[in-house]
Amino acid sequence: MMKGTHLLELDNFLLAALKEDAPYGDKTTEIVLDGSPEASAYFLAKEEMVVCGVEAALRTFELIDFKADCRVLRKDGSLVKKGTKLAAVRSGAREILLGERTALNVFQRLSGIATCTRKAVEMLKGSGTKILDTRKTTPLMRRLEKYAVRTGGATNHRMGLSDGILIKDNHIEMVGSVGEAVKRARAGGGSLWKIEVEVKNLDEFRDAVKAGADVIMLDNMEDAEIRKAVRMKPFGTKIEVSGGITPRRLGTLARIGVDFVSMGALTHSAPGADISLEIVRP
Amino acid sequence: MMKGTHLLELDNFLLAALKEDAPYGDKTTEIVLDGSPEASAYFLAKEEMVVCGVEAALRTFELIDFKADCRVLRKDGSLVKKGTKLAAVRSGAREILLGERTALNVFQRLSGIATCTRKAVEMLKGSGTKILDTRKTTPLMRRLEKYAVRTGGATNHRMGLSDGILIKDNHIEMVGSVGEAVKRARAGGGSLWKIEVEVKNLDEFRDAVKAGADVIMLDNMEDAEIRKAVRMKPFGTKIEVSGGITPRRLGTLARIGVDFVSMGALTHSAPGADISLEIVRP
Amino acid sequence: MMKGTHLLELDNFLLAALKEDAPYGDKTTEIVLDGSPEASAYFLAKEEMVVCGVEAALRTFELIDFKADCRVLRKDGSLVKKGTKLAAVRSGAREILLGERTALNVFQRLSGIATCTRKAVEMLKGSGTKILDTRKTTPLMRRLEKYAVRTGGATNHRMGLSDGILIKDNHIEMVGSVGEAVKRARAGGGSLWKIEVEVKNLDEFRDAVKAGADVIMLDNMEDAEIRKAVRMKPFGTKIEVSGGITPRRLGTLARIGVDFVSMGALTHSAPGADISLEIVRP
Amino acid sequence: MMKGTHLLELDNFLLAALKEDAPYGDKTTEIVLDGSPEASAYFLAKEEMVVCGVEAALRTFELIDFKADCRVLRKDGSLVKKGTKLAAVRSGAREILLGERTALNVFQRLSGIATCTRKAVEMLKGSGTKILDTRKTTPLMRRLEKYAVRTGGATNHRMGLSDGILIKDNHIEMVGSVGEAVKRARAGGGSLWKIEVEVKNLDEFRDAVKAGADVIMLDNMEDAEIRKAVRMKPFGTKIEVSGGITPRRLGTLARIGVDFVSMGALTHSAPGADISLEIVRP
Amino acid sequence: MMKGTHLLELDNFLLAALKEDAPYGDKTTEIVLDGSPEASAYFLAKEEMVVCGVEAALRTFELIDFKADCRVLRKDGSLVKKGTKLAAVRSGAREILLGERTALNVFQRLSGIATCTRKAVEMLKGSGTKILDTRKTTPLMRRLEKYAVRTGGATNHRMGLSDGILIKDNHIEMVGSVGEAVKRARAGGGSLWKIEVEVKNLDEFRDAVKAGADVIMLDNMEDAEIRKAVRMKPFGTKIEVSGGITPRRLGTLARIGVDFVSMGALTHSAPGADISLEIVRP
Amino acid sequence: MMKGTHLLELDNFLLAALKEDAPYGDKTTEIVLDGSPEASAYFLAKEEMVVCGVEAALRTFELIDFKADCRVLRKDGSLVKKGTKLAAVRSGAREILLGERTALNVFQRLSGIATCTRKAVEMLKGSGTKILDTRKTTPLMRRLEKYAVRTGGATNHRMGLSDGILIKDNHIEMVGSVGEAVKRARAGGGSLWKIEVEVKNLDEFRDAVKAGADVIMLDNMEDAEIRKAVRMKPFGTKIEVSGGITPRRLGTLARIGVDFVSMGALTHSAPGADISLEIVRP
Repeated sequence: MMKGTHLLELDNFLLAALKEDAPYGDKTTEIVLDGSPEASAYFLAKEEMVVCGVEAALRTFELIDFKADCRVLRKDGSLVKKGTKLAAVRSGAREILLGERTALNVFQRLSGIATCTRKAVEMLKGSGTKILDTRKTTPLMRRLEKYAVRTGGATNHRMGLSDGILIKDNHIEMVGSVGEAVKRARAGGGSLWKIEVEVKNLDEFRDAVKAGADVIMLDNMEDAEIRKAVRMKPFGTKIEVSGGITPRRLGTLARIGVDFVSMGALTHSAPGADISLEIVRP
Repeated sequence: MMKGTHLLELDNFLLAALKEDAPYGDKTTEIVLDGSPEASAYFLAKEEMVVCGVEAALRTFELIDFKADCRVLRKDGSLVKKGTKLAAVRSGAREILLGERTALNVFQRLSGIATCTRKAVEMLKGSGTKILDTRKTTPLMRRLEKYAVRTGGATNHRMGLSDGILIKDNHIEMVGSVGEAVKRARAGGGSLWKIEVEVKNLDEFRDAVKAGADVIMLDNMEDAEIRKAVRMKPFGTKIEVSGGITPRRLGTLARIGVDFVSMGALTHSAPGADISLEIVRP
Repeated sequence: MMKGTHLLELDNFLLAALKEDAPYGDKTTEIVLDGSPEASAYFLAKEEMVVCGVEAALRTFELIDFKADCRVLRKDGSLVKKGTKLAAVRSGAREILLGERTALNVFQRLSGIATCTRKAVEMLKGSGTKILDTRKTTPLMRRLEKYAVRTGGATNHRMGLSDGILIKDNHIEMVGSVGEAVKRARAGGGSLWKIEVEVKNLDEFRDAVKAGADVIMLDNMEDAEIRKAVRMKPFGTKIEVSGGITPRRLGTLARIGVDFVSMGALTHSAPGADISLEIVRP
Repeated sequence: MMKGTHLLELDNFLLAALKEDAPYGDKTTEIVLDGSPEASAYFLAKEEMVVCGVEAALRTFELIDFKADCRVLRKDGSLVKKGTKLAAVRSGAREILLGERTALNVFQRLSGIATCTRKAVEMLKGSGTKILDTRKTTPLMRRLEKYAVRTGGATNHRMGLSDGILIKDNHIEMVGSVGEAVKRARAGGGSLWKIEVEVKNLDEFRDAVKAGADVIMLDNMEDAEIRKAVRMKPFGTKIEVSGGITPRRLGTLARIGVDFVSMGALTHSAPGADISLEIVRP
Repeated sequence: MMKGTHLLELDNFLLAALKEDAPYGDKTTEIVLDGSPEASAYFLAKEEMVVCGVEAALRTFELIDFKADCRVLRKDGSLVKKGTKLAAVRSGAREILLGERTALNVFQRLSGIATCTRKAVEMLKGSGTKILDTRKTTPLMRRLEKYAVRTGGATNHRMGLSDGILIKDNHIEMVGSVGEAVKRARAGGGSLWKIEVEVKNLDEFRDAVKAGADVIMLDNMEDAEIRKAVRMKPFGTKIEVSGGITPRRLGTLARIGVDFVSMGALTHSAPGADISLEIVRP
Repeated sequence: MMKGTHLLELDNFLLAALKEDAPYGDKTTEIVLDGSPEASAYFLAKEEMVVCGVEAALRTFELIDFKADCRVLRKDGSLVKKGTKLAAVRSGAREILLGERTALNVFQRLSGIATCTRKAVEMLKGSGTKILDTRKTTPLMRRLEKYAVRTGGATNHRMGLSDGILIKDNHIEMVGSVGEAVKRARAGGGSLWKIEVEVKNLDEFRDAVKAGADVIMLDNMEDAEIRKAVRMKPFGTKIEVSGGITPRRLGTLARIGVDFVSMGALTHSAPGADISLEIVRP
């Protein structure tokens, strides 16, 4: 995550967040501290979690003080217990206090998503069913949040509208039918992209199969219907299930044998993981 | 929210989000639709919620098509039932499909925060205790999220580090004691700002009172101790409680008579409200 | 081309170009003209060409003077003779002179590409072979240049590295063999993308077929070999030819029956079309 | 070229180009390569050319990986044979593949211009006539392209509208006559700038001389007329010829003794030089 | 001033200034006012002054509220008495209060420069000597400040380092002598630019004349020496005087007959003009 | 000043200023100098002054040449005599000449403000009265100019509209009375901010006291009235005087015993300090 031009994107994001938090400095610290004495601080997990974003969190301090000494103690993807030290930073106290909240806001969000994703992935262990994310991400954090989903063990769906062909309900409403929409996509879709289509019942499913869709997303359908669809699909066609996915339903879907389950909640409703930054006077 | 230079900020935010979602256009729609036929669409509440961000959501479409006809059906702050139409837009189908996910990502997040805030505020009805938010917001969405908190009926704490003096545990660690930190703030804090300090036990509380803090935040303290603090505080000093706030504890805190309860979860862990965009062929 | 958020991108591009040309104004015009008398001007084709970019060229003047009266006389895609008036603008003389060169630089380049593309497409008329562009475009003009290619009648290949899977010689060098590279792509490529691979001889071609590539690009291969590849390819696999394509060779390739011919020269070496702007005193 | 604030401009340009090519990463490489193994690559001239832009091309890789080891093998301005290695880079394979096309697009364009310019300059060897470029450059690449013109041995005309006084046909149309336009420029032009004027026949030429123009550009005039103008010009006045310049005409113009010949084709129609990047597994 | 792309530059400048003044809104007004009642306000001259920047000041309010009704009462360049109303704005009270200080900061500075310039220009009335400004302007306000200088009746020197050739003391120190520096400029300076050189005594002046400088700047020289230089200069060469210019010395310099006097103080030390904004409840 | 994210802000400011001064390079130096020979230069105080901005000035050269060797000779806050060397830089001559004017424009302005502030502060030596600055700063230089005010020994008032509550005449005009405005601020102002109000006579002063203002600004009031206000104010309430402050009046105000005197002239009318950059050939 911390490489090449992506790093520049991350830097711009963090700098904008720092500016949002302190447009004209840290009033309290400037008054209370005498200069900026050298200090140490560490990130502390205050609950069990999958770590994600430790390098992004530390990067915040490098942007404020390019000489900051930052060390990762637990890498992204680690499952840690409450009380684990995740990373350490040594810099001036002013600089640490300036970056604290911004670093935590990113770190807590990404670890929250990774933790939440890991729980869902665990439910499917041993099955061939994979969990996908969606485009229901926080604006301007999509790349980071999709990284957190991968860190939690799930698979990314497309990055955005420019990335792959997915015909949804609103396209079908405009075009008139599933079959017609898939047909148009086959004709105009170029040589490099497969075609996924969303269907809401078995009739539409049959239409999609007939029109030659490569992947069919069953949106908000009952388990019984999903089971029928899986049986009736041609060899090579993939099935994705979406809508109303609860953790307990995941096992059922895996047993039915769907290829993918997509879960928007991984990114739009994962609670932030509880992490704090503890400063230590030298 | 939709006025003056803030609108320009919102526009930049939405444009960056649109670019993140579709860096080179909407591949599916460009292939499946023939041109961009005129279409209508409405935002639909798929659960009970407090509406927040309806104008920001609609603004997305105006940025894509400045002739888009956008209508607010339920204003921010409305409590609506499942199935309520919240807003309508009329524009080209391509333009609506391009903005759909970005508009929803903002609308769902802000309504989620407002709904979650409203529930907490309801618990305190009739008491003099107010709910405050924190700086635990999504990077680059602080202004929007603080607006959602107000829409839900709570009160904003400071906007960021530049806005008011709040001495926290890490400052105290560096300075050595609560009393010394408050004393420094009184000396250097200028004429326009009061002084808030975070304490973690009654000893520190007494120190803070003695040093003349205007507001004292009790961090992660037990109800019994909080009760003692409220009794012992001088007239005019305000008490804020923070850390480990559950909905059911709010009533207790109100009965104890604290002035403020601050809740980071309002912004860092509110689940997104369930809203969809339904397109209608003309 | 002139819609939605793309328009904003175009505007930023044109404004940066105007600023590049006149960082502190138009010294000559400010001295020579008295104020900015109303004037008319028209774009004139000074050779036969396929028109492309007329709206982008006119947009330049709207950015300088939002009241400029701009009219398209020949739409993008029109084949016009020398001497044809392509568009007209009415604005202040200063404003027209400020935008003249920037507008022409864009208009000439895009029309040059469209004209050059049209000539290649004509060579394949009646055949099933399609012409593709490449990523060999002018930095920061890719979207505009790919639009010019479509305007000239050819088909766009992928927009960039994020858009579709194309395994090239340098990937194969790193991975070790065509077969291994395709195998990895099949395993990790997700459900929405097909797999194209570049090969430089028939051995690699056979490897690619065996590994299940969806599209195979024959790079710098002789006609005789290409003919063999077309005969030996499985049903459904597509063949693209690339490298050393001259206009006269296009007919041969069509007769051989390849699916696609990609031509970098369409964008990296098309000469600008000859267009001038003629101002008329009212 | 690679110094001071210009470097920052170049960096911004290259970063924008990288972002244009890979808004969300290099899909193929991320799937096909296992991590980013160390690799070497070199730029190879695939035809005879004047090298230009080698440092800009290498800079692309430094922006992606600040530890990339980049070496110039042939400096800008070198005339090289087909098969010459121009530069080498050592970095991760992912980083090299990410930068490859962007680096080549800049390198090929600049070398194309330098090569094309050199050919024209060769035609004038031994004469006192100099070749000038024009403002017919690629938007946002003017500084780079004017550098390529210098690298090819020609002289830059003004950088843009803010840089020097050049009265053109459209100014004259608005003002009414060459004489009046020059007169106004003399009156208002300040103390630091000379005055160039474009004329299209000998009558206008005489007017320009009479009004005291410092440089007179003969636009699209016949050789016979140009010869007359050169004879009739006062001592100290310079003559520039423009329009319809073919390589073979250059010798004639030099013999006539004009001071400058300006050629837009150097920048708007120079074909890209053929350069490739060859990666080598370590 | 308020035209074309310059307007966009001005807008960016004003928006950045508004953001600097109110990064998260106007705390006072948001608390004290109930909504944003319609209000009127006018700019009032609180001393005699030359008006400059009235449109820029009003533009501030249009950026905050695009429906603001703004009227110029006294145009730029007007000499007004204390108590004169300069412009009026009608908008919401919140919007007016948000823009007030930013608008005044620009308006006061530009009017201060114009007023100060006018006083200097008056001293030279009837003479052929012109007053020039310098590059000693406020960073990012050069174009606006040079406009204020013109508004006050003086003449702009070059806009910056890219605009014209002016050899200064530090160039001469590096090159070794005035003569050598001018000689190099003549050889390399292209056909469109004259050559100005700064000298600090009569020996250097003679060198400059001999080397063929077009304009010679006498830096910090005594009146007696200046008089000698004026007498000894060849026909056509211009003389500029710079350094230690007091208002009373201007008359002397005019009588001596120098062509230009350049005054840095016009922009770096002009006191702001006293202007206020008076709001009126409707 | 030169730390953390502020440095990035400063860099952006300086880079924009360099670009403003030299949008396409330094025409003179490129012609006159042969390459960029190593050179030294020092900043020289040409009058007595309080140094301010020495690090910002030197930073300019680091941005142009990251290997520039920059040394501070006199720190910000030093009171120096005419002829003192303030800082030294060693870099290429081209790079030094490119940054010279931009560095000086910042350095002269900040030192001018610090010098002017110091003079005012000296007048109050030994008294308890403090000097405050205002929001009458140069657009985009507020942080730098407020730093210069601190360097000169005075105290900053609020940074901008988002920073603290200050009810001014225009608020009172809209609300109807001083008392009502203060009352509203007390009700809505949150727990962290005190309330300052501007009054223009003793009646309003009494109103302000009664409504419980924490700080009262007496705007343009006579000394006799100010004396009455100081006598009549309750313990704890602070008094600020503003408007028409001349140096000689400062002593009187100190004797009267006001808490603060705010002076806009410190930033809007301080003349630039006279500093030059002297280059030395090695």
